[in-house]
Amino acid sequence: MPPTMRALRKTQAGKGLRLEKVPVPPVGPTDVLVRVKATSICGTDLHIYGWDRWSQGRIKPPVTLGHEFCGVVERTGDEVTAVKAGDSVSAEMHLNCGHCHQCRTGQAHICQNLRIIGIDIDGAFAEFVKIPATNIWRLDPAIPEHYGAILDPLGNAVHTVLAGPIAGQTVLVTGCGPIGLMSMVFATETNEHRRTLAKEMGADFVLNPAAEDPVAKILGATGGTGVDALLEMSGNPAAIRQGFKALRAGGRASLLGIPTENVPLDLVEDVIFKGATVQGIYGRRMYETWVDMTALLKAGRVNLEPLFGERMELENFEAAFAKLRDGLAGKILMYPNGMKK
Amino acid sequence: MPPTMRALRKTQAGKGLRLEKVPVPPVGPTDVLVRVKATSICGTDLHIYGWDRWSQGRIKPPVTLGHEFCGVVERTGDEVTAVKAGDSVSAEMHLNCGHCHQCRTGQAHICQNLRIIGIDIDGAFAEFVKIPATNIWRLDPAIPEHYGAILDPLGNAVHTVLAGPIAGQTVLVTGCGPIGLMSMVFATETNEHRRTLAKEMGADFVLNPAAEDPVAKILGATGGTGVDALLEMSGNPAAIRQGFKALRAGGRASLLGIPTENVPLDLVEDVIFKGATVQGIYGRRMYETWVDMTALLKAGRVNLEPLFGERMELENFEAAFAKLRDGLAGKILMYPNGMKK
Amino acid sequence: MPPTMRALRKTQAGKGLRLEKVPVPPVGPTDVLVRVKATSICGTDLHIYGWDRWSQGRIKPPVTLGHEFCGVVERTGDEVTAVKAGDSVSAEMHLNCGHCHQCRTGQAHICQNLRIIGIDIDGAFAEFVKIPATNIWRLDPAIPEHYGAILDPLGNAVHTVLAGPIAGQTVLVTGCGPIGLMSMVFATETNEHRRTLAKEMGADFVLNPAAEDPVAKILGATGGTGVDALLEMSGNPAAIRQGFKALRAGGRASLLGIPTENVPLDLVEDVIFKGATVQGIYGRRMYETWVDMTALLKAGRVNLEPLFGERMELENFEAAFAKLRDGLAGKILMYPNGMKK
Amino acid sequence: MPPTMRALRKTQAGKGLRLEKVPVPPVGPTDVLVRVKATSICGTDLHIYGWDRWSQGRIKPPVTLGHEFCGVVERTGDEVTAVKAGDSVSAEMHLNCGHCHQCRTGQAHICQNLRIIGIDIDGAFAEFVKIPATNIWRLDPAIPEHYGAILDPLGNAVHTVLAGPIAGQTVLVTGCGPIGLMSMVFATETNEHRRTLAKEMGADFVLNPAAEDPVAKILGATGGTGVDALLEMSGNPAAIRQGFKALRAGGRASLLGIPTENVPLDLVEDVIFKGATVQGIYGRRMYETWVDMTALLKAGRVNLEPLFGERMELENFEAAFAKLRDGLAGKILMYPNGMKK
Repeated sequence: MPPTMRALRKTQAGKGLRLEKVPVPPVGPTDVLVRVKATSICGTDLHIYGWDRWSQGRIKPPVTLGHEFCGVVERTGDEVTAVKAGDSVSAEMHLNCGHCHQCRTGQAHICQNLRIIGIDIDGAFAEFVKIPATNIWRLDPAIPEHYGAILDPLGNAVHTVLAGPIAGQTVLVTGCGPIGLMSMVFATETNEHRRTLAKEMGADFVLNPAAEDPVAKILGATGGTGVDALLEMSGNPAAIRQGFKALRAGGRASLLGIPTENVPLDLVEDVIFKGATVQGIYGRRMYETWVDMTALLKAGRVNLEPLFGERMELENFEAAFAKLRDGLAGKILMYPNGMKK
Repeated sequence: MPPTMRALRKTQAGKGLRLEKVPVPPVGPTDVLVRVKATSICGTDLHIYGWDRWSQGRIKPPVTLGHEFCGVVERTGDEVTAVKAGDSVSAEMHLNCGHCHQCRTGQAHICQNLRIIGIDIDGAFAEFVKIPATNIWRLDPAIPEHYGAILDPLGNAVHTVLAGPIAGQTVLVTGCGPIGLMSMVFATETNEHRRTLAKEMGADFVLNPAAEDPVAKILGATGGTGVDALLEMSGNPAAIRQGFKALRAGGRASLLGIPTENVPLDLVEDVIFKGATVQGIYGRRMYETWVDMTALLKAGRVNLEPLFGERMELENFEAAFAKLRDGLAGKILMYPNGMKK
Repeated sequence: MPPTMRALRKTQAGKGLRLEKVPVPPVGPTDVLVRVKATSICGTDLHIYGWDRWSQGRIKPPVTLGHEFCGVVERTGDEVTAVKAGDSVSAEMHLNCGHCHQCRTGQAHICQNLRIIGIDIDGAFAEFVKIPATNIWRLDPAIPEHYGAILDPLGNAVHTVLAGPIAGQTVLVTGCGPIGLMSMVFATETNEHRRTLAKEMGADFVLNPAAEDPVAKILGATGGTGVDALLEMSGNPAAIRQGFKALRAGGRASLLGIPTENVPLDLVEDVIFKGATVQGIYGRRMYETWVDMTALLKAGRVNLEPLFGERMELENFEAAFAKLRDGLAGKILMYPNGMKK
Repeated sequence: MPPTMRALRKTQAGKGLRLEKVPVPPVGPTDVLVRVKATSICGTDLHIYGWDRWSQGRIKPPVTLGHEFCGVVERTGDEVTAVKAGDSVSAEMHLNCGHCHQCRTGQAHICQNLRIIGIDIDGAFAEFVKIPATNIWRLDPAIPEHYGAILDPLGNAVHTVLAGPIAGQTVLVTGCGPIGLMSMVFATETNEHRRTLAKEMGADFVLNPAAEDPVAKILGATGGTGVDALLEMSGNPAAIRQGFKALRAGGRASLLGIPTENVPLDLVEDVIFKGATVQGIYGRRMYETWVDMTALLKAGRVNLEPLFGERMELENFEAAFAKLRDGLAGKILMYPNGMKK
């Protein structure tokens, strides 16, 4: 193993990223060092590249980005028993503290002292990444290896879908970004490219709210009742309001998309009189969602192939970020250790 | 039984009510006729008296008001077997249709074709009231009889409290009107009279948001964690916002109070990042709430006495409505058939 | 409409059934009269035919059998608004009392005063059957019409499957009779014909406990963990014990099959130390299960075709009962009003 | 701190225990060393003293017993931040592995690789005990200090009680040992001393199944319905069967007591036709139960005083074990570091 490696980093307050040589991280007794195979770009990475207000408040340069990846275990600390060198792995990149109220009550995914690998400490846009053993997730050999690079956003989708009853339910997904695309039935989306993807991935009805009234369409298709579940993936205030209008009395609204402004919900008509349940969704349950996700993928019930876009070497990151910024959707995979198997 | 009776009615579009002589209602094969003993005034009755915008859209005069009452069965229809003349009863005054999606799935309390006795059809501000047998609730002899006149609002409170885990939870009640007063631990309320009542009924901390910062106080008292459950009884936008700020990550907010305007919730910080669950609460579960409420009252776990204010003959209704309008809280009981036992 | 009709009845205490002429039932104000199109034979009907000990205690001849059917509304009572003549329907044949504790708390399917149409009162092995309007279920036109004749047992299966979390779960079904066949993943069954059906219907692993050790096989296939859910459909003590051994710690066992003897469960190892949840399953939830079942069928997620066996006129009932007695599985449909469409 | 300490140990395969001098345990980077204040004897300790069959299979001498205790932190490892020297603490004595299916899915209390301090590794019948920091539980100053010595069995009781809905429910506790005594309403118990304790602790009805028919009494007192919840604390087959007979349809049976033989449950009548839910209860949820228990104790809703029996120096352990063996109930506290504050 070489002493240094290439890593894609935010090196200073300001726009852009830089590919740098940095030391391979040292491995403590409970750590795992992973040789990164493929890594995927999240919307959050775009925000950090662009250095928006949120990034300015959160990111402390220099730091290596990247929190969606798969790879192979290179080395393990002395006390690690759950994985060994050569294992194919991904990881939960949220590090929980273990002693706050939420950690103590089965809600580690909303830990009050959360740190994120690839945001707060060095991540996976690099040849190697260091992960605490508790957070390592071994990849089942029955699952296509590159799926491992997008288990993080798939986990968001699965957590949202399974946050309430789902079998036999009518479901509306508002917003067909990569996460929304993983959880389809009814779907609303203004971007044409994403509507096409939604159909490919099995959505029964795909509606364009810019061109038709999605609430009327959905109420019509459900005999006036509305949908059992709203999975909100867009963060768009109009989509949120339409989603609540299309929700049946007694239904559930699971909110994952992040609005950038306050949304004046009609609490009386849309929540109280409806007896609705609204759920804030953050991250993925640690590790119930990972277990469920693995089972769904193994059962072959989820085909993610249409989601994948181009694959490229880590060096070509500028092209990758540019494509994503232009909304050409899909998940782009980058290969820090080269693309040949 | 006389052919006519006195009834307190909305007789025309406009302010006020009138006490009139009307026929005693006829009893169909599945109906129960109840001789009203005591009846209580709800905030909704004040709105109808005052003929506000909501009343103008909903009420079709002439109609007898009154949906909180207790009484004694006078006569039953031919097919009624569950109660008999002489039984002490109250009733669920929401009539559900029995065939909409919600009725079919155990959510009759949010039936899409709901009609309310005392709002949409003749109610209990009268010597007699007609109730379908399915909606009659027999009063357990172990429960003080006059409690029967306020089971409807108590049911709202119990439904709200039991809408999520409650044993061993820290709870914040925002708004100490009669319903809020029935569900105490932490409590916020600007009205001094109601704060005093809240202490009498066992609230551990009673805060005045006009004079102190309730969020800071509650966070301090819970070691920075926040409360497990917010029971929102006020409908006041400031109280709602404070309640959400005081709620812990992963907590539940059960909303019963009806805001009169859109409330710009901070969905991102207060719901999504918190992984919170928000529940709209309407009515009472039919009839889980009634069963729970009876068990709680029988066990003597709930003392409602501090809630009761004056008692008076139905004739003195103007005095009763005036007192309530002035916020002198408590539940006033009116006796259509006289106050002597 | 003729004054009389043919009906397949238990006419006296003893073995066998008789086809008789009886009056078409009168229709009360809240009743619906249905012209039966197809009707299916349940295992219970075989017991009644054979006049076993259970039948002797329960059945009061004369009574028309038949509780699985579909048909067309012929006539409705004066107060019926939810269906009209010409509608395609099936029905929930369990009649609940509406006022016991269970009926009052959303558990009408385990009503303490339950009566069953086709068991306790005249059923659907006839040209016409009378059903209370509350119990009628309109068939969605998107669902194959003959599926309507087996919604009762499908409801048992769906109720069992949905009695706990199911998405992303590993599941073991013990017993592949018609109900077990509707809820597959792992499956154990000693009858070869049924094992073949199980594979056709999509079971991933089909095991023959007479020839191999199903517990070892299942533990092996789940990495030693065991299955998340046991759906027990056989009532066979050995299958029940094997099912519990194959269940993971913290899993759920949903018991639908009816053992004919006491089963000496190993409560300590299989329930207590495992922290398992055991659910008794009876009937179908009224009417959550019907709603879920309709949604699943409409979504095309459930293919029941392999289940259907022969179709015949009601007159040929002896042949139908003989085939079923010999374990030649499948659901046989009988047509009281003739087989031509 | 001295290099050695006194400890009560199983030193060899066979009956009895010995008080020995042993080294004070070394403290690793994530460990906490606690000076034991008071420690309590569990039924399990009696079994190990008596060297029954279970002990012979599980215990590997030499080992220090004791898994119920409270004390003060003496020293902490370098990486420990959640507690500091001088803190009053107790601990969860079950050590979970962190990577099995159950640990990954919020069910660490039924970890498949569980080790128990005081059973499998050195415990708290000593002047000092070593506990991993994750398992330490800080005692809230609002709770009586000696309660800290019995949080382990109280946690069993609280876990059992809160394993299903409890507010407004009728409850039957079968078996009034120390754990059953912490969870009262209806109670059955053959030991007179324990029946007296049950009344002191607030049970509404205390029945002696040796002298009266508890099922008939309970059905009578619940209007024929039966209890909503059975909390089984005895492990006695007769009590288990009576408990199931007294359970209402749709109720839950939470089983904590450990039967020493197979119990031939009437699965058909008592579980399946009843639509009942049966829960195996093991240990305490990590750490939901600890959080709930603390809240209940802080709220002053649970008075445990009647439970406490004699207090004595650790040296007098033979007297303590003898009293408990004779069924003179209560929890005996032993003080390894002397009884004076």
